[in-house]
Amino acid sequence: MEQINSTKEWQELNNYRNKINLKELFNSDPNRAKDFAIRTQHLYYDFSRQLIDRKVFELLLKLADKAKLKEKISSMFAGEKINKTENRAVLHTALRSFSSTEVNEVLSKIEQFSCKVISGGHLGATGKKLKNIISIGIGGSYLGPEYLAQALRPYAIKGMNLRFIANVDGSDFAEKTIDLNPEETLFIVVSKTFTTAETMKNAETAKKWILKALNNHPESILKHFAAVSTAKEKATAFGIAPENIFGFWDWVGGRFSATSAVGAVPLSLYLGFECFKIILHGASFMDEHFKNTSFEKNIPVICGLIDIWNINFLGFKTRALLPYFQGLSKLPAHTQQVEMESNGKMVDIEGRPVGFDTGEVVFGEPGTNGQHSFYQLIHQGTQTIPCDFIGFIKSQYNLNEDGITHHEELMANFFAQPDALAFGHKNFPGNRPSSSLLLEELNPFTAGLLLSWTEHRAAVKGFIWGINSFDQFGVELGKVLGLKIREEIIKNHKNKDYKVSKESYPASHVALNSFFEKKLPS
Amino acid sequence: MEQINSTKEWQELNNYRNKINLKELFNSDPNRAKDFAIRTQHLYYDFSRQLIDRKVFELLLKLADKAKLKEKISSMFAGEKINKTENRAVLHTALRSFSSTEVNEVLSKIEQFSCKVISGGHLGATGKKLKNIISIGIGGSYLGPEYLAQALRPYAIKGMNLRFIANVDGSDFAEKTIDLNPEETLFIVVSKTFTTAETMKNAETAKKWILKALNNHPESILKHFAAVSTAKEKATAFGIAPENIFGFWDWVGGRFSATSAVGAVPLSLYLGFECFKIILHGASFMDEHFKNTSFEKNIPVICGLIDIWNINFLGFKTRALLPYFQGLSKLPAHTQQVEMESNGKMVDIEGRPVGFDTGEVVFGEPGTNGQHSFYQLIHQGTQTIPCDFIGFIKSQYNLNEDGITHHEELMANFFAQPDALAFGHKNFPGNRPSSSLLLEELNPFTAGLLLSWTEHRAAVKGFIWGINSFDQFGVELGKVLGLKIREEIIKNHKNKDYKVSKESYPASHVALNSFFEKKLPS
Repeated sequence: MEQINSTKEWQELNNYRNKINLKELFNSDPNRAKDFAIRTQHLYYDFSRQLIDRKVFELLLKLADKAKLKEKISSMFAGEKINKTENRAVLHTALRSFSSTEVNEVLSKIEQFSCKVISGGHLGATGKKLKNIISIGIGGSYLGPEYLAQALRPYAIKGMNLRFIANVDGSDFAEKTIDLNPEETLFIVVSKTFTTAETMKNAETAKKWILKALNNHPESILKHFAAVSTAKEKATAFGIAPENIFGFWDWVGGRFSATSAVGAVPLSLYLGFECFKIILHGASFMDEHFKNTSFEKNIPVICGLIDIWNINFLGFKTRALLPYFQGLSKLPAHTQQVEMESNGKMVDIEGRPVGFDTGEVVFGEPGTNGQHSFYQLIHQGTQTIPCDFIGFIKSQYNLNEDGITHHEELMANFFAQPDALAFGHKNFPGNRPSSSLLLEELNPFTAGLLLSWTEHRAAVKGFIWGINSFDQFGVELGKVLGLKIREEIIKNHKNKDYKVSKESYPASHVALNSFFEKKLPS
Repeated sequence: MEQINSTKEWQELNNYRNKINLKELFNSDPNRAKDFAIRTQHLYYDFSRQLIDRKVFELLLKLADKAKLKEKISSMFAGEKINKTENRAVLHTALRSFSSTEVNEVLSKIEQFSCKVISGGHLGATGKKLKNIISIGIGGSYLGPEYLAQALRPYAIKGMNLRFIANVDGSDFAEKTIDLNPEETLFIVVSKTFTTAETMKNAETAKKWILKALNNHPESILKHFAAVSTAKEKATAFGIAPENIFGFWDWVGGRFSATSAVGAVPLSLYLGFECFKIILHGASFMDEHFKNTSFEKNIPVICGLIDIWNINFLGFKTRALLPYFQGLSKLPAHTQQVEMESNGKMVDIEGRPVGFDTGEVVFGEPGTNGQHSFYQLIHQGTQTIPCDFIGFIKSQYNLNEDGITHHEELMANFFAQPDALAFGHKNFPGNRPSSSLLLEELNPFTAGLLLSWTEHRAAVKGFIWGINSFDQFGVELGKVLGLKIREEIIKNHKNKDYKVSKESYPASHVALNSFFEKKLPS
């Protein structure tokens, strides 16, 4: 297939660059606010402050057609093996459609397990209630679930705690366990292959921690460990009871796995299984919207097309995600993975180098915090950073307030910033693009909806660029070299005089040999 | 003064773009690893994997001379009013030189207060020990102190907790106080002017929370509140005892204030005053290095020059900060503020538009977490993201491990990633630039040192670009518009039929009027 930047549609968009002025557009087009917004059940998406006019919008929709976006979306939902480098289907949407027998079986098993733990039917080895849940996993095995856990803290079952240990840095384990009673603690080891280096290291440390505290009680591992993995034999060999191992499938990629057992096990224990099911319904709502809505009203499609306009035609390669809600503080980190791991690719699906920019950098902090930090650059810096604002009609908390509430103060800022960016003032140039997503409240349904929105928006871009958004070979080299240096450390353990050579490590031999001696290079 | 991009030195650098290949450089220059690294007491800075050769390095040093960097640094340390738009000196370095009487007086007052609270000489109104410290502040009033608190958790005084409330979103207050006993809680209200909207809103909510729990005990505010502010009258009017108000000065900018009372009060309560003093010594060590070291061995200067090379000549406008240490998880957010608020400027110090790029976007997560997330784009994306790695010889924790430790696993990755980026392999192009900073351990001294390093690196760029890195007018417009919308909300409170007009709010009237009705636009 022809690369997308060779098409007439791409060229036409290219001819349109730098022609847009937002003030003029709103002046000349009285229906702009209305027409450049999508109203649908559960959300309102306003893209009127993006640097696009009716012509650009039309051309972007044509680009989507040219890229066969509709067909590609259908192929994904149909379970075709669109992840070609790994010869796999991409079916995270099937995790929340309640139509797959194998999915339903795992969900049912998770429902039983979580009910047993929460109700006290599954106790710790010494008979105590398990109230501290620690999920051990890295990358996609924690970023999505952590976002959901943070977003839904007010929905947590009273007395249940949920923490995540990801980093191989022992500080992460030490600090997350320092105030916990091992007798009341349940670990969930989350690793597709049950071989992820960081996760297995932390799992081994957790095992020692439990065994020591429980005086090697014979049921220590059986009662205090569960696993989420496709490698049941390895998890069993670790000592985990088969009934506490929850599977998923090769058609669920790590960064798309929050609605699989990866999220279901920790979140059902923390929020209850019924609550987790509502997350699935929310994600499914957005899946259906994405699958069935014509493109000119399709929110993930329009978001993806706008990103392409900003990246490829306007040259804005960094995007800020600015949720005006403290509960969404982990959404930027999750989105960072979904976008940058999916679309940080330099070859297309046929292996050819792409001749244009792909994935953008995504960063962000909750508003209003960011306003007192990096917004200076967004308003008056020399680079343009397209912004996505997310706001809610209602708060999650009622602080019994008089007069103007915390939430109203927050939302005054949510409404003010996009206008300030778009229209400027005095020393503010304006014409800086943003979109706003408005939802009723942050609850399990909308948290799931936002998760699915994030996933599909990234997929839209990959489909149009013609890259494979579903593999991640870029993490491999770092892993391989990490293992090589690990071997050098082991050699040094065995022989304290062992040093690495300048020839093998032209850049890092000085620091590495110094590390062997536990001191700085002098 | 001539703009820097008009100089011969700038032009010479411009002629040198895109000529660098790291593999070739290491092959052709056997002393590269040694010569492109700075060894000094307490740290080792390796910039051999940046895309610079000896000629570029020399030209960058010439650029610094041309920009009169030496004189500008001296002016800053001498207390000249280099923040010209606000007519202020920039003297955060004086906060840790122990040579200013007014600084020493405040420090001494903080020492006494923190000792009294920690020892139980200052109790809550109902006679309980104050063990929960909550610092209320936003932007520079929390990002630096939060970074330090997170970095130094193992140094905390047993039984003392420290939390930060920044966001005007009521969730932040609700979640940070949900498990605390008000009788044991001390709030520190941190606001230079004692008018910051978010901070005053949270302070008022804190006051109500304390008064309600303490049945309006007459000593509620006197015993449970302290303030850090230059506006002593306003803090007194709030009800705070004069002896619990700690001042600072107009020559301390918000984002440079972590070593003033802004950081000193919460951190002395959390870590003890002696520990806080060591932070100051660490910052001072880096101040002295910055002030006295010739540029070719001066770490903040070289970092700033490399950033300029990457931004202005190679076009890399986003930088990743990647600490291989969980305790530094808040350093990227703090650095984001220091860099983006300081250098996100489009006019120079004489008010002329700059004709080149200024501040970069900074983002990051601790390693190895980031490796399983956005590193895909860093390794194989179409944009080049210069990386800063930070690592430590020793861990903060001893987990009693056999064989290869958590910390060694972590450091294997710390050493592997820069080489993978620089030298590539198979489908990895390599030639992607990074620097590595290696320190002995993360302790109060090095945490302070890193703070100062971050501050001076940003200042170096501003000095060379000829912009004012010490004001932040870019946050004003958002504030003004926020207050305008706040007024609209109040009008609607008074008259439920009140709506904003399309003329006044061409983009946001639909969403805002709908928010008044507490529902989504339909």
